[in-house]
Amino acid sequence: MGRGEGAAVRVALLGCGTVGTEVVRLLTGQAADLTARIGTPVELVGVAVRRPHRHPWLTENFPDLVTTDAAALVARDDVDVVVEVIGGIEPVRTLLLEALKAGKSVVTANKALLAEDGPALAEAADASGADLYYEAAVAGAIPLLRPLRESLAGDRITRVAGIVNGTSNFILSAMASSGASYGDALEEATRLGYAEADPSADVDGYDAASKAAILATLSFHTRVTASDVHREGMRSVSAADIAAARLLGCTIKLLAICERVESNGGEAVSARVYPAMIPTSHPLASVDGAFNAVFVEAEAAGQLMFYGQGAGGAPTASAVLGDLVAVARNHVGGGRGPRESAYAGLPVRPVGDVPTRYHVDLEVADREGVLAAIAGEFARSGVSIAAVRQTGGAAGDRDGDPGQARLTVVTHSAPDAALAGTVAALADLDVVLGVASVLRVEGLGRAVSALGMPG
Amino acid sequence: MGRGEGAAVRVALLGCGTVGTEVVRLLTGQAADLTARIGTPVELVGVAVRRPHRHPWLTENFPDLVTTDAAALVARDDVDVVVEVIGGIEPVRTLLLEALKAGKSVVTANKALLAEDGPALAEAADASGADLYYEAAVAGAIPLLRPLRESLAGDRITRVAGIVNGTSNFILSAMASSGASYGDALEEATRLGYAEADPSADVDGYDAASKAAILATLSFHTRVTASDVHREGMRSVSAADIAAARLLGCTIKLLAICERVESNGGEAVSARVYPAMIPTSHPLASVDGAFNAVFVEAEAAGQLMFYGQGAGGAPTASAVLGDLVAVARNHVGGGRGPRESAYAGLPVRPVGDVPTRYHVDLEVADREGVLAAIAGEFARSGVSIAAVRQTGGAAGDRDGDPGQARLTVVTHSAPDAALAGTVAALADLDVVLGVASVLRVEGLGRAVSALGMPG
Repeated sequence: MGRGEGAAVRVALLGCGTVGTEVVRLLTGQAADLTARIGTPVELVGVAVRRPHRHPWLTENFPDLVTTDAAALVARDDVDVVVEVIGGIEPVRTLLLEALKAGKSVVTANKALLAEDGPALAEAADASGADLYYEAAVAGAIPLLRPLRESLAGDRITRVAGIVNGTSNFILSAMASSGASYGDALEEATRLGYAEADPSADVDGYDAASKAAILATLSFHTRVTASDVHREGMRSVSAADIAAARLLGCTIKLLAICERVESNGGEAVSARVYPAMIPTSHPLASVDGAFNAVFVEAEAAGQLMFYGQGAGGAPTASAVLGDLVAVARNHVGGGRGPRESAYAGLPVRPVGDVPTRYHVDLEVADREGVLAAIAGEFARSGVSIAAVRQTGGAAGDRDGDPGQARLTVVTHSAPDAALAGTVAALADLDVVLGVASVLRVEGLGRAVSALGMPG
Repeated sequence: MGRGEGAAVRVALLGCGTVGTEVVRLLTGQAADLTARIGTPVELVGVAVRRPHRHPWLTENFPDLVTTDAAALVARDDVDVVVEVIGGIEPVRTLLLEALKAGKSVVTANKALLAEDGPALAEAADASGADLYYEAAVAGAIPLLRPLRESLAGDRITRVAGIVNGTSNFILSAMASSGASYGDALEEATRLGYAEADPSADVDGYDAASKAAILATLSFHTRVTASDVHREGMRSVSAADIAAARLLGCTIKLLAICERVESNGGEAVSARVYPAMIPTSHPLASVDGAFNAVFVEAEAAGQLMFYGQGAGGAPTASAVLGDLVAVARNHVGGGRGPRESAYAGLPVRPVGDVPTRYHVDLEVADREGVLAAIAGEFARSGVSIAAVRQTGGAAGDRDGDPGQARLTVVTHSAPDAALAGTVAALADLDVVLGVASVLRVEGLGRAVSALGMPG
């Protein structure tokens, strides 16, 4: 299989933006260390970029390596491994499929492609016996995919919930710490380079949904694509939501959640992305700024958390290099990394069927029977109330007008569709003057005790 | 190399205590899943225990597997992999060396043996081409060693600092939350099963030192044994220390610290275990009870943290099974896991030479010149003071006696020996009535700002 010890492992790099530049720096700057760790040198034989003039550092230091013809680079006989950091679907999909078909191993950071077409890549890798590694595709530098697919390979993962998009977390952290509006916080994130000119992939949850698809696929041995993931972004999170969360001892995070759930007595998978309240005592609550963290629950291992930088050139390059070392070791030793494992083939449940919990903040008329009307609406949908708190009533308007109060309800878990339906019905009640905030609550029921009331 | 797909990978288990029992349960209970993930069945062919009558569950459910002759089990032709969860040095060392010499791969949770004689095991594995995996030896269920030796294989790890002993962390957490003395907290830990009858391995830092040796070896590609690790336990941590830490916005944790340090212009390694103050804002500060967490810093990846259960039957078994799946995959695929990599061969610096920071709490006479005398003592040793706070003076004794005050000093970093020498010299000063608390401070200088004074 391998070319034996001594012969260099020859690498083609596709793309040379922030991450690619760091890959080149690490590959060339730490060559002696890498050789010692792998047992053979790793040699960069070519770097494909579309517009070389935009890469002065590369063209100046490595003029002989630069090419604009990525397909020809991939097809070269003297390429053993293709490292891809271009991103996007095409032409990358075609290039990587060609590489894998030719038996060349692939290291990629391309979450969008993996979430859309991971199975095709995995099949091509299996057919030729090539490796396919993509640690950098989820949570940047945090070693997460390798633990999921290797360290926990003898365990049963039940839940993966994490903050996997640094841009939206930066914005939510800024809103929470300064009381800024979404718009102001986004502006600051853009100014500091944490958000792109078009922030949609980040704030609308597309990026997190791709990552959720990859995490669910690995965790549950079931193919989950981005389109299977229920996705709600965080543009709608208001300063009022943040304030409501604080009152409950909670904070709001955009979470990617992958769970094993029941389905007609059998098992299924749920994968979803939305902003949710979590208690400030939850380990994910203190993950601020552009950091990522992922909380994993497994039957034997219990609760695990992984924390670190989710993006950025150097952190992402660290993950790419770790994969490259693994691929090179396999190449030399004649082995192979773990294959895609989709044997379980569980169905994906739509979010409406999945049990979640809601927090609802209502502006209500401060008069008799209000609580009964609202509680009745929950009961009608079969939703059980975990905690309720009324504030601002008696101390409110005392000049003769009917008073106004704030009613905060945290539900027990119920099918998401029933909860959403209840909120819609509540809004139609006469006694409800407005719905100030609706957010899902995650984090193991701790929110209830945070509310200071019996669950 | 491998026996090909289809043929079972045959496993011998040495030891069947809490962890071993869970390994048997997982191996037999999840057989179908494991087969699907590996591509071939894993078959348990024997379990060696010293006193079978102490293992009624095992002898009842698997009577044909039980043997008291571990050496004969290891030597059997139909054993491919040996899983060891006995612990201790002998007879385990001999058994595992025999297995490795015969080309049988080994999965072990034995931190003491690895920290004392890891190189001999690694050499035996390399000589025969067998695998040696030991994820469960450090931080139980937390995937930590695989990330260090694989995910970060293309990066340069600069520091690993963690809470790796659950028993001592449980005791320190109890002391911090209830103000209990060390003795009372230990008693509670023993009653709840977190501490053994003889708690020395945990509270005196031996267990953490073994783990530090393993972490330093992997992180810095340098052989570090337990005897290279500077070790101070946490028996000496008093309620006064805990209170002093709280006043500074800190908490006390027993830390295992492995660092790259400078040494005469070159590089060296420091590995040490001691109780230290860390700011409550540090991610490790909120790791309470029997949980473990390890903070890793690498040049490209930046800061990473791994959190989870560090001990217990099921969590440790999860790590053992993950290794077993990897070994079985290698066995089937003909590959091998990463070998021991000690190419860097860095020297280990004694703790006295390593820069640390101290917090010192002194009872001093409340009169003129005290601060000058004390500051002079620090200056004499070349130790720079980062922050100082005097309290309780004026408001102290007003009945004619010379007053007494509390002086808290946090130093900048200086060689540990200079700091220790300064504290000894301070204790001899006339104006110093007593040394209430001396603790090292870790955590990136944040303690200084926590003191509310310019650094």
